[in-house]
Amino acid sequence: MRTIYLNGEYIAETEAKISVFDRGFLFSDSVYEVVSVLDGKLIDFDGHVRRLARSLSELGISGAPEAEAWLAICRELVSRNAVDEGMIYWQVTRGAPSDRDFVFPPADTAPTVLAFSQSRALADNPLAERGINIVILPDLRWGRADIKTTQLLYASLMKNEAIARGADDAWMERGGVVTEGTAQNAHIITKEGMLVTHPLDREILHGITRAAVLPMVAQAIEERPFTVAEAEQAAEAFVSSASGFVMPVVSINGKAIGDGKPGSVTVQLRKAYIDWARRTAI
Amino acid sequence: MRTIYLNGEYIAETEAKISVFDRGFLFSDSVYEVVSVLDGKLIDFDGHVRRLARSLSELGISGAPEAEAWLAICRELVSRNAVDEGMIYWQVTRGAPSDRDFVFPPADTAPTVLAFSQSRALADNPLAERGINIVILPDLRWGRADIKTTQLLYASLMKNEAIARGADDAWMERGGVVTEGTAQNAHIITKEGMLVTHPLDREILHGITRAAVLPMVAQAIEERPFTVAEAEQAAEAFVSSASGFVMPVVSINGKAIGDGKPGSVTVQLRKAYIDWARRTAI
Repeated sequence: MRTIYLNGEYIAETEAKISVFDRGFLFSDSVYEVVSVLDGKLIDFDGHVRRLARSLSELGISGAPEAEAWLAICRELVSRNAVDEGMIYWQVTRGAPSDRDFVFPPADTAPTVLAFSQSRALADNPLAERGINIVILPDLRWGRADIKTTQLLYASLMKNEAIARGADDAWMERGGVVTEGTAQNAHIITKEGMLVTHPLDREILHGITRAAVLPMVAQAIEERPFTVAEAEQAAEAFVSSASGFVMPVVSINGKAIGDGKPGSVTVQLRKAYIDWARRTAI
Repeated sequence: MRTIYLNGEYIAETEAKISVFDRGFLFSDSVYEVVSVLDGKLIDFDGHVRRLARSLSELGISGAPEAEAWLAICRELVSRNAVDEGMIYWQVTRGAPSDRDFVFPPADTAPTVLAFSQSRALADNPLAERGINIVILPDLRWGRADIKTTQLLYASLMKNEAIARGADDAWMERGGVVTEGTAQNAHIITKEGMLVTHPLDREILHGITRAAVLPMVAQAIEERPFTVAEAEQAAEAFVSSASGFVMPVVSINGKAIGDGKPGSVTVQLRKAYIDWARRTAI
């Protein structure tokens, strides 16, 4: 039985409940983060705190915990739930007024603050050995994918659609170019040895892992949209995310990438990222 | 203190709570309806039941109440809360598994089913006398606005942005044409006496009130997208929604529509709709 953090209290997971009037529930008026844990320590904590602050600021939600408070919450959850490896999920909503209204509640309405842990093997993930199979599906998400909101219905639908098609996950495509995965940034390495990755705009999440990984790449980097055809013909492909780290992609739309095994640059990059994460986790 | 329906029970509104793992809360994996009440009776109940069934079917959520059960729930809420005029809100989510995962829970996971009432004057709404002021803002919603999901963050942001700009509400514009309001279908009547309204596609919600109102219109109807400029130059403009019925628009982007008072066609249409609603409510 996990212990969960909800609005200042540490409670049993089965007791962790929110009002049906919570704006996260009625309006998806809510943002989140996922911070990974290795050796009981938090990876890239500062990056996640900064991105959460940006998401909250874009939506005008105030009153959420500051960095020090988040650190204390995370450490308490790691300790109480004996998390050696896994994730800490954070969510902040605009709070729970007494009734449903599209108009925001008074500015002094307390936000709802939730955090829980998930224990899971991250470094020795068998998927990293095998590599993942990707299908490309349309990107129908809203126009602010850079804000990490809980409007995740479409991403969840596409994840499930990918599985229904026999793949592991989906990349999404808008106007002929790949934006990102359902919960990962998408990257390719061309046959010419160039790493190509979608630029940071409103079409993709500004990945914390992406930001940590790119400086570790020896290859030249082009931050520009790439097409589905480019992806299918890439020498290597991979995704980056907080809980997946660097994960090789071995096929796209049924076409093998390279020789259909994790690419050597990707494998090296995963190792470099995990080494860095272990070294710098707090 | 309202009594609320949640998962088979009638409980006090302050006791109505859902698990933090509910997919409606974590993923916006959730749809809703709003049914209005006049004289203690439900307006266009069948239309709302049918649209809810379509929304659920599009998302593959099963196990929600059927029409008869919804009718019983609505009548119980009307009775227990002495609702003479107002709304009954319904929400169905893909349920609350024991942990967070983008992958759907097992198909036999029970959906979360919520319903609550809101008492409010609808027929004698003072806004209908004055008419509402609209600003036009970009439509950045996801690509399936025809599914009535709780991904309402953007609509709520635009409603609040409209108020911040001194207006009552917003119409949204994509590619130069008006799609719809934040929670209403948008319609104009041209100087030539033509009613123009966005066609039923994936860009707009297929309004139940829209479907009831259009056959009451004496004017010729063109179901086609209209531009912002056409809207600003219209002879009349109005919105339709379950709780607003037919609501006159008297300015768009600060430009008066007609003489800046509710248009005569609109006023007649509102009266015709309310008469019909009173006659047919169950």
